[in-house]
Amino acid sequence: MESILKQYTKAQIDRAKNIRALIFDVDGVLTDGKITYTEGGDEIKSFNVKDGQIIRHLRLNNFVVGAITGRSSKIVARRCAELKLDFVYQGTETKKAKLSEIRQKYGLKDDEIAYIGDDIIDLSLIKEVGLGMAPIDALEYVKAEADLVIEKRGGDGVVREAADFILAAQGKLDSILNSYY
Amino acid sequence: MESILKQYTKAQIDRAKNIRALIFDVDGVLTDGKITYTEGGDEIKSFNVKDGQIIRHLRLNNFVVGAITGRSSKIVARRCAELKLDFVYQGTETKKAKLSEIRQKYGLKDDEIAYIGDDIIDLSLIKEVGLGMAPIDALEYVKAEADLVIEKRGGDGVVREAADFILAAQGKLDSILNSYY
Amino acid sequence: MESILKQYTKAQIDRAKNIRALIFDVDGVLTDGKITYTEGGDEIKSFNVKDGQIIRHLRLNNFVVGAITGRSSKIVARRCAELKLDFVYQGTETKKAKLSEIRQKYGLKDDEIAYIGDDIIDLSLIKEVGLGMAPIDALEYVKAEADLVIEKRGGDGVVREAADFILAAQGKLDSILNSYY
Amino acid sequence: MESILKQYTKAQIDRAKNIRALIFDVDGVLTDGKITYTEGGDEIKSFNVKDGQIIRHLRLNNFVVGAITGRSSKIVARRCAELKLDFVYQGTETKKAKLSEIRQKYGLKDDEIAYIGDDIIDLSLIKEVGLGMAPIDALEYVKAEADLVIEKRGGDGVVREAADFILAAQGKLDSILNSYY
Repeated sequence: MESILKQYTKAQIDRAKNIRALIFDVDGVLTDGKITYTEGGDEIKSFNVKDGQIIRHLRLNNFVVGAITGRSSKIVARRCAELKLDFVYQGTETKKAKLSEIRQKYGLKDDEIAYIGDDIIDLSLIKEVGLGMAPIDALEYVKAEADLVIEKRGGDGVVREAADFILAAQGKLDSILNSYY
Repeated sequence: MESILKQYTKAQIDRAKNIRALIFDVDGVLTDGKITYTEGGDEIKSFNVKDGQIIRHLRLNNFVVGAITGRSSKIVARRCAELKLDFVYQGTETKKAKLSEIRQKYGLKDDEIAYIGDDIIDLSLIKEVGLGMAPIDALEYVKAEADLVIEKRGGDGVVREAADFILAAQGKLDSILNSYY
Repeated sequence: MESILKQYTKAQIDRAKNIRALIFDVDGVLTDGKITYTEGGDEIKSFNVKDGQIIRHLRLNNFVVGAITGRSSKIVARRCAELKLDFVYQGTETKKAKLSEIRQKYGLKDDEIAYIGDDIIDLSLIKEVGLGMAPIDALEYVKAEADLVIEKRGGDGVVREAADFILAAQGKLDSILNSYY
Repeated sequence: MESILKQYTKAQIDRAKNIRALIFDVDGVLTDGKITYTEGGDEIKSFNVKDGQIIRHLRLNNFVVGAITGRSSKIVARRCAELKLDFVYQGTETKKAKLSEIRQKYGLKDDEIAYIGDDIIDLSLIKEVGLGMAPIDALEYVKAEADLVIEKRGGDGVVREAADFILAAQGKLDSILNSYY
């Protein structure tokens, strides 16, 4: 067993073994949930470099990786392009409908999908998918629905922790690490 | 009783039952109190996406929702417009006088008003209204006047925690959550 | 005795009673010490609204209030103008020489001056003045020279905590608070 | 023994005694690892003023000081120029090859080099050099390879803590501090 798996339960590891797609919310997951404006009318958003490092390896391991968000911004488009995500759906009012679309497009079953969200709009997806996750600073009633609470706060590497876990559960993390020596 | 109510006292819950209006300060409540300037003369301010999510539901439940602040910025105007607040009073030197105006305009009694503030300029409003609140990182002598100290720091979802509490005390939170499944 | 004084020693309170001037470093005291640049060549700096609230009352109580910093930026000039400081000396290479100048100009003795700094360049001033202070996140060897370690981190209201303490030690804080009811 | 050395082991201090070069990663070490974009297409990055203060003294003591990063930005170039680093290599895909180049150019042996990194791309350098370090918020499997885990988080003065330690181990810190009185 890969060493980072010690902190997870057998049930969580079993769920992670089936995952072929990692989907996440943006504000509060990829970011710290701050909505930042300038007096001159610009907007600012911060992501985490550690999330980017692992997304590259998810893609190399043929995972479907994408983002669904209720808001809309060119910043998110820029960051998601940089991360070479399979998809980014912005301005999504009903995430549930969007998930059906994704499932069909990529031929995914519910238990092959992992989802990370932090607010009420994410509740149904967290409950529905095979591995529903929420960051430590999500609302209590959102974390209550999650199969796994990520120990990082939004924007501090939530996707990294989730992806490291999934890759380790599937026995793929050690060989990634070894490739860097 | 809705589950998030466990951490509140009966006196706090009783106060929350009467509330029909949620009013708050901006800097240090909606934001983390940072005043951010750029060398080029611009200004930057950060809000929290989680506050926005619940304000929509306060409005749907016919609460009066608004902000009163001593400072003034286009950024605050933009965020408050996005949140569709009933009012935002900027550049307010005497918040007490402004509260009288609001009470009259919306036909509100003191015990129907909740107010969140974090500094000396907020002291009289916190003391006067039915449910006076301050975030955990407010000055000690401000928190000492509050009926309820919010566990979040300014900018980390203070309005969300206050609104969730009020909606739960009035038996309205569970049905909001259920609508997302 | 005003209630916030409980956490201070008699020696600290005695030192605070003589103070007529509060002088502070900028980066790491008024700010969190972050040096922030944009790709387009702009610079960004964040201050704390709570520091501003109390500086107004220091001035109303005839304190000399000013900043000395080794760096230089229009942002600091803007914030200090907004705070109506008596002076802001930027680009100061030798703070010790600058302190002599200030002492002479305002007719101040060493034990009438309080100074807040967080790094090696502040060591001599912290040691020399009547009330030398450093924020909790200053270097250990800087805090070791301070008469008082402020519990806030730089940018989180360090000047506020220092000023509240000095005003309370001089019996002036309660009447300030009372004026807000 | 200089007082800050108490928290380090003899093995760590022995490693630090040989160091003649301090090399570090940028994102997650000099910065908090945030990738920040604006809607208008600009990018923002934050450094720490405390890192800058000590780099000046490393140079005065004839250390080779430089940065190697996989990403690329004018902001990093600006900050590194300000810090007068001996080198900054951006857009570096293989840090191991770059280290060989540096070793040759500056006539350095592995046990004379200290390196600070926080992610998988830094693993081989942390393992290879005489004093490999990682900040407290680095990935667990990165910290596991480090000779020393720095107690600061990325962007909070990681280089400062590392440099203070190396200078103290070599008996050079006290005289630096004394020069400020």
